[in-house]
Amino acid sequence: MRDLDREETYLVDRRGLALELRDLVGTGPVPQGTYPGPHGVLAYGEGRFAAELLAFPEWVEEGTLFLLEGGYDLGEAAAMGLLAESGRARVVRVGFRQGVDVHIPPSPLSPYRYLRFLLLATGQEEALKEVDEKLLEERRRLGPEVPLEENPAKFLAYTLLERLPLFYSPFFRPLEAAAQTLTARIGKSLSLTPPFSALEFFLTGLEARHEQGDPLAAVLLGGGEAVALAKEILETRVDAVAEVPPPEGSRLAQAVALWYRLAWTAYYLALLYGVDPSDQEVLERLREVS
Amino acid sequence: MRDLDREETYLVDRRGLALELRDLVGTGPVPQGTYPGPHGVLAYGEGRFAAELLAFPEWVEEGTLFLLEGGYDLGEAAAMGLLAESGRARVVRVGFRQGVDVHIPPSPLSPYRYLRFLLLATGQEEALKEVDEKLLEERRRLGPEVPLEENPAKFLAYTLLERLPLFYSPFFRPLEAAAQTLTARIGKSLSLTPPFSALEFFLTGLEARHEQGDPLAAVLLGGGEAVALAKEILETRVDAVAEVPPPEGSRLAQAVALWYRLAWTAYYLALLYGVDPSDQEVLERLREVS
Repeated sequence: MRDLDREETYLVDRRGLALELRDLVGTGPVPQGTYPGPHGVLAYGEGRFAAELLAFPEWVEEGTLFLLEGGYDLGEAAAMGLLAESGRARVVRVGFRQGVDVHIPPSPLSPYRYLRFLLLATGQEEALKEVDEKLLEERRRLGPEVPLEENPAKFLAYTLLERLPLFYSPFFRPLEAAAQTLTARIGKSLSLTPPFSALEFFLTGLEARHEQGDPLAAVLLGGGEAVALAKEILETRVDAVAEVPPPEGSRLAQAVALWYRLAWTAYYLALLYGVDPSDQEVLERLREVS
Repeated sequence: MRDLDREETYLVDRRGLALELRDLVGTGPVPQGTYPGPHGVLAYGEGRFAAELLAFPEWVEEGTLFLLEGGYDLGEAAAMGLLAESGRARVVRVGFRQGVDVHIPPSPLSPYRYLRFLLLATGQEEALKEVDEKLLEERRRLGPEVPLEENPAKFLAYTLLERLPLFYSPFFRPLEAAAQTLTARIGKSLSLTPPFSALEFFLTGLEARHEQGDPLAAVLLGGGEAVALAKEILETRVDAVAEVPPPEGSRLAQAVALWYRLAWTAYYLALLYGVDPSDQEVLERLREVS
């Protein structure tokens, strides 16, 4: 098994994703000022998680409508663009499609940059400050220089190795799909998310095949009664249960801090599988056809 | 391997889910009349898919707000109830929680019944008629009496057997989680759904582990350019690709028809695994604690 505390393990990180991860806080475009409200957000691709975190309406009659275009999904770009342009609100296009007003290049770490731009553009500097402080705190204990026994991201990566992760985050459900995306784009690995009625799914979905296939590793994000009940259900049904409690703070700061920890975890998972944690080359073809 | 064209295979269906599946059309409560508009829907659990299909707003100032309470999820019931009662709209509680106005007992097939109630309660008899006609057409070729070579649900069940299904439905994304729920609650089996940016996920998430674990079976629901591209990406990465084109009709009728076919598929999958396709006993404990 590869050792995350040895330098040669990091050689597969040919494009230096570790640096992008480490220096993430404070990166991304800065708006010239605050945009007039009310604010709305339409998003697909890499901007989607930021839109879910801030829960702006998808439509405003006046003010500013941010159109986050950070993806390759077919058709959605054109449909959302037409919808946005049909109103009286000022439309600000952010992302990496042609003709955007604000450019954010594609990266699995861009969700932070969309979030930062939106917080600054809507006058929420205090909320951004709290998020950034949490991320800097997380960074101190998640980097490659922090050895396994003090590094929760390295530890979680070993738990997920050779297992199929199952992400459950009752305090903020969109974090599950964000975790699945990080695990795929950085960790190059498959993972599972439950449907809306997650507890019924845990109880029934693991009945028929419990002795077959990959061992599952449940990753319970956040805390509370739903996590406790899920743990009780899953303990006898999966190979490993990892609880990831959030740091203190607002729900926004907690969700982004957990997202950042999962990004580091996915990074270490790629190293353990011996694959490049970057995905630029993998996605280039998709960008060409869409 | 068990044979879906032999009677003894059906003995595990101890509670007769096949009858509930066959006779589904036209079941469920009927409203006394149309409720005053505008209409809003707040839903969790078994009512959720119906709410997604009809895309009513989650909040209305006046008119009628339907509160679909078809689940065990902790905390959501109370929070949604409080929210609903805080407005001026008439609140109609539908589901199986205590004190509901309209009772729909728990069942993995109840999503149809929530949909039917909502369509009748909001004056959409024509839309319901189209849905019911499609389901009756599907029924003719999906039941146990139709042999394998003419029965697409039996055929799909054999494709999914001993594989991990991956559902992708670009024409109506909520169908993926509905399919995952049916596969768990009826088929007693685990399945996968992709995150919002599905194509990136398909390209990157199957890199590191493609020679390990369960063979995957991609189930592509509906048609169009995104399905074609997903097929191209997935063909070399998964063990089997099943395309499930929708019948002719409105998007609503197409989505419900595909949901019904997947319910039959999950039923046959349970039989192939030799487990009871019902889930009442499995879920009884959860109902007690929540």
